[in-house]
Amino acid sequence: MSASQWVYEFGNGKAEGKADMRNLLGGKGAGLAEMSNLGLPVPPGFTISTEVCTYYYENSKTYPANLRQQVESALTQIEKTVGAKFGDTKNPLLVSIRSGARASMPGMMDTVLNLGLNIETVEGLKQRSGDARFAYDSYRRFIQMFSNVVLNIEPHKFEDVLDDVKRARNVRLDTQLKASDWLEVIDGYLEVVEKTKKKSFPQDVHEQLWTAIGAVFSSWMNQRAITYRKLNDIPHDWGTAVNVQAMVFGNMGDDCCTGVAFTRNPSTGENAFYGEYLVNAQGEDVVAGIRTPQQLTVRGKKDQKSDLPAMEEVMPQVFSQLNDVRLKLEKHYCDMQDIEFTVQQNKLYMLQTRTGKRTAAASLKIAVDMVNEGAISKQDAIKRIDAASLDQLLHPTLDPKAKKQVIATGLPASPGAASGYVVFNADEAERMANTGQKVILCRVETSPEDIHGMNAAQGIITSRGGMTSHAAVVARGMGRACVAGAGSLQIDYKLQQMSVKDITIKAGDLITIDGSTGEVILGEVPTIQPELSGDFAILMGWADGLRRMKVRANAETPQDAITARKFGAEGIGLCRTEHMFFDTNRIIAMREMIIADDEKGRRAALDKLEPMQKKDFVELFTIMAGLPVTIRLLDPPLHEFLPNGESEMREVAKAAGIDIGKVEKRAQQLHEANPMLGHRGCRLGISYPEIYEMQVRAIFMAVAEVQKEGKNILPEIMIPLVCLKKELDILKVLIDRVAAEVSQQTGAKLNYLVGTMIELPRAALRAGEIAETAQFFSFGTNDLTQTTFGLSRDDASGFLPDYYKANILEHDPFATLDQEGVGELIKIASERGRQTRNDLKLGICGEHGGDPNSVKFCGRIGLDYVSCSPYRIPIARLAAAQAVIEGEKDRETRRNAA
Amino acid sequence: MSASQWVYEFGNGKAEGKADMRNLLGGKGAGLAEMSNLGLPVPPGFTISTEVCTYYYENSKTYPANLRQQVESALTQIEKTVGAKFGDTKNPLLVSIRSGARASMPGMMDTVLNLGLNIETVEGLKQRSGDARFAYDSYRRFIQMFSNVVLNIEPHKFEDVLDDVKRARNVRLDTQLKASDWLEVIDGYLEVVEKTKKKSFPQDVHEQLWTAIGAVFSSWMNQRAITYRKLNDIPHDWGTAVNVQAMVFGNMGDDCCTGVAFTRNPSTGENAFYGEYLVNAQGEDVVAGIRTPQQLTVRGKKDQKSDLPAMEEVMPQVFSQLNDVRLKLEKHYCDMQDIEFTVQQNKLYMLQTRTGKRTAAASLKIAVDMVNEGAISKQDAIKRIDAASLDQLLHPTLDPKAKKQVIATGLPASPGAASGYVVFNADEAERMANTGQKVILCRVETSPEDIHGMNAAQGIITSRGGMTSHAAVVARGMGRACVAGAGSLQIDYKLQQMSVKDITIKAGDLITIDGSTGEVILGEVPTIQPELSGDFAILMGWADGLRRMKVRANAETPQDAITARKFGAEGIGLCRTEHMFFDTNRIIAMREMIIADDEKGRRAALDKLEPMQKKDFVELFTIMAGLPVTIRLLDPPLHEFLPNGESEMREVAKAAGIDIGKVEKRAQQLHEANPMLGHRGCRLGISYPEIYEMQVRAIFMAVAEVQKEGKNILPEIMIPLVCLKKELDILKVLIDRVAAEVSQQTGAKLNYLVGTMIELPRAALRAGEIAETAQFFSFGTNDLTQTTFGLSRDDASGFLPDYYKANILEHDPFATLDQEGVGELIKIASERGRQTRNDLKLGICGEHGGDPNSVKFCGRIGLDYVSCSPYRIPIARLAAAQAVIEGEKDRETRRNAA
Repeated sequence: MSASQWVYEFGNGKAEGKADMRNLLGGKGAGLAEMSNLGLPVPPGFTISTEVCTYYYENSKTYPANLRQQVESALTQIEKTVGAKFGDTKNPLLVSIRSGARASMPGMMDTVLNLGLNIETVEGLKQRSGDARFAYDSYRRFIQMFSNVVLNIEPHKFEDVLDDVKRARNVRLDTQLKASDWLEVIDGYLEVVEKTKKKSFPQDVHEQLWTAIGAVFSSWMNQRAITYRKLNDIPHDWGTAVNVQAMVFGNMGDDCCTGVAFTRNPSTGENAFYGEYLVNAQGEDVVAGIRTPQQLTVRGKKDQKSDLPAMEEVMPQVFSQLNDVRLKLEKHYCDMQDIEFTVQQNKLYMLQTRTGKRTAAASLKIAVDMVNEGAISKQDAIKRIDAASLDQLLHPTLDPKAKKQVIATGLPASPGAASGYVVFNADEAERMANTGQKVILCRVETSPEDIHGMNAAQGIITSRGGMTSHAAVVARGMGRACVAGAGSLQIDYKLQQMSVKDITIKAGDLITIDGSTGEVILGEVPTIQPELSGDFAILMGWADGLRRMKVRANAETPQDAITARKFGAEGIGLCRTEHMFFDTNRIIAMREMIIADDEKGRRAALDKLEPMQKKDFVELFTIMAGLPVTIRLLDPPLHEFLPNGESEMREVAKAAGIDIGKVEKRAQQLHEANPMLGHRGCRLGISYPEIYEMQVRAIFMAVAEVQKEGKNILPEIMIPLVCLKKELDILKVLIDRVAAEVSQQTGAKLNYLVGTMIELPRAALRAGEIAETAQFFSFGTNDLTQTTFGLSRDDASGFLPDYYKANILEHDPFATLDQEGVGELIKIASERGRQTRNDLKLGICGEHGGDPNSVKFCGRIGLDYVSCSPYRIPIARLAAAQAVIEGEKDRETRRNAA
Repeated sequence: MSASQWVYEFGNGKAEGKADMRNLLGGKGAGLAEMSNLGLPVPPGFTISTEVCTYYYENSKTYPANLRQQVESALTQIEKTVGAKFGDTKNPLLVSIRSGARASMPGMMDTVLNLGLNIETVEGLKQRSGDARFAYDSYRRFIQMFSNVVLNIEPHKFEDVLDDVKRARNVRLDTQLKASDWLEVIDGYLEVVEKTKKKSFPQDVHEQLWTAIGAVFSSWMNQRAITYRKLNDIPHDWGTAVNVQAMVFGNMGDDCCTGVAFTRNPSTGENAFYGEYLVNAQGEDVVAGIRTPQQLTVRGKKDQKSDLPAMEEVMPQVFSQLNDVRLKLEKHYCDMQDIEFTVQQNKLYMLQTRTGKRTAAASLKIAVDMVNEGAISKQDAIKRIDAASLDQLLHPTLDPKAKKQVIATGLPASPGAASGYVVFNADEAERMANTGQKVILCRVETSPEDIHGMNAAQGIITSRGGMTSHAAVVARGMGRACVAGAGSLQIDYKLQQMSVKDITIKAGDLITIDGSTGEVILGEVPTIQPELSGDFAILMGWADGLRRMKVRANAETPQDAITARKFGAEGIGLCRTEHMFFDTNRIIAMREMIIADDEKGRRAALDKLEPMQKKDFVELFTIMAGLPVTIRLLDPPLHEFLPNGESEMREVAKAAGIDIGKVEKRAQQLHEANPMLGHRGCRLGISYPEIYEMQVRAIFMAVAEVQKEGKNILPEIMIPLVCLKKELDILKVLIDRVAAEVSQQTGAKLNYLVGTMIELPRAALRAGEIAETAQFFSFGTNDLTQTTFGLSRDDASGFLPDYYKANILEHDPFATLDQEGVGELIKIASERGRQTRNDLKLGICGEHGGDPNSVKFCGRIGLDYVSCSPYRIPIARLAAAQAVIEGEKDRETRRNAA
């Protein structure tokens, strides 16, 4: 790449650029060059590189010195090829000016067609085409487009002129206007420009060209484009290229058309040509939706139940030519392409080719088919699937054709769409569900006490909380749809209703939620049930064959564990034992334990809990037989188990046979200013060793029982919230003691590991010494993110929107791992831990374990496994395989560099 | 040091050990060896080294193979020197067995005197001494002591025997018993042993010796010793030595005595011999307090208004000899010594010398005097002062002679003693203080709303909260005594009383608190006012001359700033602007701002606040003229400014002219689950830039005004809670803009720095990029400790006691910096920050800035300054000087090693 080459020519069967020069030429430019090289019919043109855009912004919107000369020379080349001259009054060359960034940014930047027309050249065009109406229509289109895009004049001013003329002529359609009418429109348009801008519309074609080029570069920084890039993670410094290309006309008569197509069906992935065209039209007419586009193929016509003739029927020869292009492009690019073409007087011109966007299902099918066709390797297939998109395949989705009245939007906390009757409390949700009714549970926020209601509901809405709030985490684990933190919903439990602006939704009303978009919708919207294709299993099999990291599930209920195995979990990475305490029977014993005065009282209550915990573990271990199960001992602060309201407190007091005052006092004692940083995790195990003792005993007794059935299980006992090595030391002694006791009592040989969550910065830093005791680390990235950022996940949703708006944060750090900060701590801990103990098992069990980018990060730094909610397991499996491929590529790049 | 030498002899003018072998021989052993080497009269003996203790515990309480032989040989050496034989029935050698650890652990371990006596040897002692009473008394003392210490028989069993005999003889004092009476006591004692232990008292002297040695080693791990070590930071693996020494007797008649002395007055530091002695007594009689000890010197006799003759009068010759020893020891050790001696028949024997403990005042005076005497260097003087002890000099202390009924103990949150009437709310505290009454403000916890009451009070008690709770931090800043987290106090605002067990204290009752010990005391206890001696200023001057780090103050009120300058602050390191908003007038405007619906409403309220803030800054800058002032922009979450109770909410609603429902709703909206990790710090500045804008404008307007008066000020504007560089970038743009505006408006030339707190782990890790924007870092170690540990300082006091008990933590990490964890982050941030910007100013402004060990750490890693509460400034100045000395020593050690 020469620093002084700013312009790259293409067309006429050759090009200075090619497909892999995308960064320099943008997607469109690279595609045009590549098509030229392939000998496809591409109107000649040239690309002004993205480097000029960078130069432009770095040099107060000026151009490199020799740009003008290079553009002139390239323009001359087009003139030669086309046999017309730019600005010539007899035989004018017209060009299109199109943006083209590295990544596709559809409709975000500006395009100008028909450039090179003015009062004089339009007459030349009229002469050459022999079609006055076409020439004047082209000119008025150019004025309108140029004025809008380059001069920033509002479109409605031109529409008004056009409407006036149509009204005067008493016609309804543009096509009914004659050449003379268009002349009148042109006069009106020119007047609008004169009036609005206080100067005439530029008649000098070179002025037109350079102003349009400047407008494209400027459009890179328009608000729309900036927002789009932010949403799609496109860096602002990539810049756009500008493509200047000889115009071809799809609007010169009935032997002309213009169309867009996909080389395969982008919705299903089926290997069938798929696209639309319009006879006698220019590109923007397809987009504008004034006329109904027609199907390319007869097959498409049938599928769409269209009465309009297919291109295959109308222009069979050109269609056949186009189909050849389709096959050639697919073979060349080894991927489904999204193409644009124009037919001018029966001659086909290709205007664009790029990798086509597709649904998750299509993506899978295309990838698997192409492997079977021998077009791509399995690795390529794996690389191509957007792991996050698999979510679409596992949950019901809203029928895209259905109408919907969105009344509020929250966070897309757990994917899937669901409809049901509004209920405001968990018991009611369960009661209605038991009568076979579908319900949506609506809460300000949820707590572990609501779990049975969440399980009974089709979906959950909360008005407070983030992507890792209780509602979100539990819903994802259960595979329930959830919209979290829909702040505009005012939920009123007393009145049993919620309101947003002037809409009030009462208990029993029907609503629908889309947990993939965060939308809350009035009434019931039809949904489409997911269907797992055979391609899914095939691709997952390839991924499993490739990946190095294991994938485990965060699961504690039998149902979750079964789902997890179904999705391919290779063990449980996080069994949150506290979830087992919220059952109606158990919560009573749990509360008794909490309000007990002394160890004796606590032990009495724990004795009641132990058989229940043991039973849970027996069930879980039976399901997970043969696989490792990581069990986290009690983590949340005790006050989470106490009731809030007075009536509930009274109930607890009655059940425990004590005074309500005592319950209240205990609740008050346990109250904490910042419970997230309070008396929880292993701190409970230090203060009340009898609690952990009970849990550990239940685990080992369960292992002993399951082993008797001939099933094998490796429990990995995990201590949460360790920040000092001594905490772990003390609790390991306790665990080993209980193991020895159970071994003695049952005669079972117990194999187990003792390890720790690494979820506090201090633990990450002191990992070297902690690994002296810990046999495994599991990174609890939810808490680690909270403490590393000093950011409460329960409260962050209140102000993170300000952060996105101010462009401070691009992602929710609770959804996508902050690799720079939190990631460095994970790296430090991994390195220091392995230095002490080189076979230290490393995993991650935060919510990030199901996020593709975070999974790849885990792969890169050498973790042994990731653990995520059951429904995210396929995503993690795929991302883990992608991590291996990317790792190999990185290594290769480094090898080549060395 | 030979690995096989376990025993070190001393006495007779020479020794195998010396003073600097303290780690091996223990303090007592090293002192005895050194005195022997100096030619002082030391009874011969030997020390069994601490390595034997280590061996003993590492080898299931057994001894090294050749220990027995080395002890036998050393014992023979004593026999030779003394001319008596161990176990000889004619001329028996008696020995004492004493523990002696590296660090003094007074009374924590065991001692046995008169060992070597049995039914036969006691007769030999009788013959040789010609004093039957002495011999039998010695024997019964030995039985009693040995039985207690070695055989674990409870002392009262022997006291009962003695009492019986005394009753039978109808005498009151031991001295009234005759030899024959003692024989009867001995019989009784032997019977007690026989009965209790089911075997006879050991008559074999070698068995006595080895059992006693074993008892001393075992006593290293008794509960008392373990607790003492934990309290005094003595590692458990140091071990104790055992000293075996020929007995000398202070109880052989009136030409005998025993005593303890300090080479200077340990209370005032005056250079005067100071001590007590008892004629015809053994060491334990002095301790037992049965007889009133007499003063050594005539001067001492006068000072103590004693009628008993001084040693100087009674034994002038021996006294003069002792005084020579005193001078020799001081000259040799260059420090005040604590010595023990015995005079046997007019012959002086030295039994111990060690560095004497002293009060903070004495410590200062001795150090300064010794420099003036040419005995030590200024550096030595600085090194010797325990920086933390300076606190004693700055606050009133309880009269140690006064009686006190301690009813509760909390954390020693802010030093000083204070008495006053109990009040339960801040307004009442202020009202009563205005009428001239002294009050103690008692709260469950304090909030910024209580500040005026805290300021009005003599002292503060809270029943909840830790060393860095609001109450503790503010009290220290104000120099008010504070006992925090006295959990046993049940405070009842409604009944206006607090209770602990069956004691109830009502509003208006008198109580006293000691903020240096955490005690809450019934009634009024007399206090002693502090007096800053000239020595204080002299020593501080030396420290200032030596230290590299600057010392600044955490201060915002004019009073704090004045105090800070008085104590030598070189600027303000942390001005917490939120404290300025709690004034009665201001809080209304502040609340108006918070409940405003939009930016316009907020700006209107902020406009009211701006002139008040400006006025504050003008005052502060005037006081601090010529010095840098670091101003932290608003940090706490907004809900901290809203009232809690309904009546107060009503008041706010009324003042703002709005509905109370709106106030409640806003309070509810602002409520956070974990406010410490919530919408606070620079997150407020991002969401509501107008707040920071107002504050910054007030700062610059104040600078402009003060500059007009010819005073210079360098404001350092500090952004709190930064975790992402972009936060700082955005706010720096705002600050620079406002500065430009104020400059324009006032014509003032504004110099200022913009920097950030580093108080989140992520900020520490990303310090490299943050320093691209920040001109200084100030480590907010309170928050950094909270997030690094995942530990809320408001909640930690609930379970940290369990951590101390389980030996997991030795210190409150909020009081003493965790150098391993939090410290590493500080180091990382310092290095990465300086790598980006090598003149980056680094300081610390957490509570740790006033903790000597933490200050030294800051010095070691190269911070530019520490900032602490005004009353801790002298401590920080001294510690900063000590850091330099220790740093030089470290470097020297490394140089020598290299």
